[in-house]
Amino acid sequence: MIESKDNEQLKTIRKLQQKRWRERLDLFAAEGEDLVEAAERAGWVPELLLIAAPGGVDAHAGTPRSYVEPQLLAEASALGSGTRVIGVYRRRWSEPGGELSVYLHGVGDPGNVGAVVRSAHALCDGPVLLGPGCADPFSPKAVRASMGSLFARPPARAEPAQLAGTLVALDAAAERPLGELATTAPLVLCLGAEREGLPPELLERAAQRVRIALRPDGPESLNVAMAATVALHEVATRMAADA
Amino acid sequence: MIESKDNEQLKTIRKLQQKRWRERLDLFAAEGEDLVEAAERAGWVPELLLIAAPGGVDAHAGTPRSYVEPQLLAEASALGSGTRVIGVYRRRWSEPGGELSVYLHGVGDPGNVGAVVRSAHALCDGPVLLGPGCADPFSPKAVRASMGSLFARPPARAEPAQLAGTLVALDAAAERPLGELATTAPLVLCLGAEREGLPPELLERAAQRVRIALRPDGPESLNVAMAATVALHEVATRMAADA
Repeated sequence: MIESKDNEQLKTIRKLQQKRWRERLDLFAAEGEDLVEAAERAGWVPELLLIAAPGGVDAHAGTPRSYVEPQLLAEASALGSGTRVIGVYRRRWSEPGGELSVYLHGVGDPGNVGAVVRSAHALCDGPVLLGPGCADPFSPKAVRASMGSLFARPPARAEPAQLAGTLVALDAAAERPLGELATTAPLVLCLGAEREGLPPELLERAAQRVRIALRPDGPESLNVAMAATVALHEVATRMAADA
Repeated sequence: MIESKDNEQLKTIRKLQQKRWRERLDLFAAEGEDLVEAAERAGWVPELLLIAAPGGVDAHAGTPRSYVEPQLLAEASALGSGTRVIGVYRRRWSEPGGELSVYLHGVGDPGNVGAVVRSAHALCDGPVLLGPGCADPFSPKAVRASMGSLFARPPARAEPAQLAGTLVALDAAAERPLGELATTAPLVLCLGAEREGLPPELLERAAQRVRIALRPDGPESLNVAMAATVALHEVATRMAADA
């Protein structure tokens, strides 16, 4: 039973709130029973499992676990109070692939990155490809927003120049609406940050540029995770119909 | 120049982080220049405008404004540091209406409510209808997630029994995919919280139940704001094609 905040395991948990420690240790933390169970379902074995005692989760046989005074565990949480279990896992990256995947460029908000990881897991067979300037998918907010899909389908790292397959750029300035897209697999949907968009070299390389039709009296853009999800749904539906 | 945290205006800002005070005062706060400018574009006059001085925004003539010592303004912020302007506005609600709108039931996360307000503003002509159990759209996180669409298209309050038009239920258990939906206007897309879904009486009243097709090896559901956006896009696109 851990009863001191100076415990080395709690120190590790707190360090993993910082990207540089996640990179140095090649580890990340997932908070809450839902995420720890999602990891287990996906076959991930935690390096460490900290459980609030008494009354903590007790169904994770075979992994190194520690029981922690509940208030201390809550203080080590990156996401606020009420956390009853924190698992620490080794980071994993996928390789690019699949008939349909999505590439994000410069998407700095971890909630958006995690949300796209979840949507991609629901709608396509390839991983999310994370380009320069994207938030760390292993940050606490991204892990939470992925709702466990991070474990089932870890993202891949990518550079624009390495992207293979039919590149489709989502671009607010494109003339062609999403619905007129030719769905030639393997297809990579490419999205940039909301204001900056995609870099010119990627727009030039794209086989097609399409836009999501928005009302003229509405906002200039959708949230990037919304746009990715709408486009993935449209392309996945049309690919399934063509198959 | 406000230099005390006991200043009444700063106290008001801090109170407005709480729902009961927003209801009692019938006011809410919007933080940051982007939101204050969105309010201005939509014709909203702030009841109060607090500007970090020196160097604060200075382009809001004709409204009661106060300059605040920057650190004090940051401390009154609900959303963390760096806030240079906070506007206080009287709450407004729309009436239900439009050819296409979206009804949310029991969606308790303010980020999701705000995100749907933004997507609806981009994709349909009716307001977001908020049923029982939804997060307050005037909470700081909801206002921020709406990215200003809250001002352009305030949400409406609704009870399930009062909903009029063609009710379409998004329901993971439905057999019919979204793409087979008949788009009879005025149409109200109805979504419940991710786990609980829609209440039985609403499912029974719905003219159609549809599901978003998800991969069998993926998560059980999309995030509710993603699902709403995908469905709004699909219906709006088909309505535009039929028109």
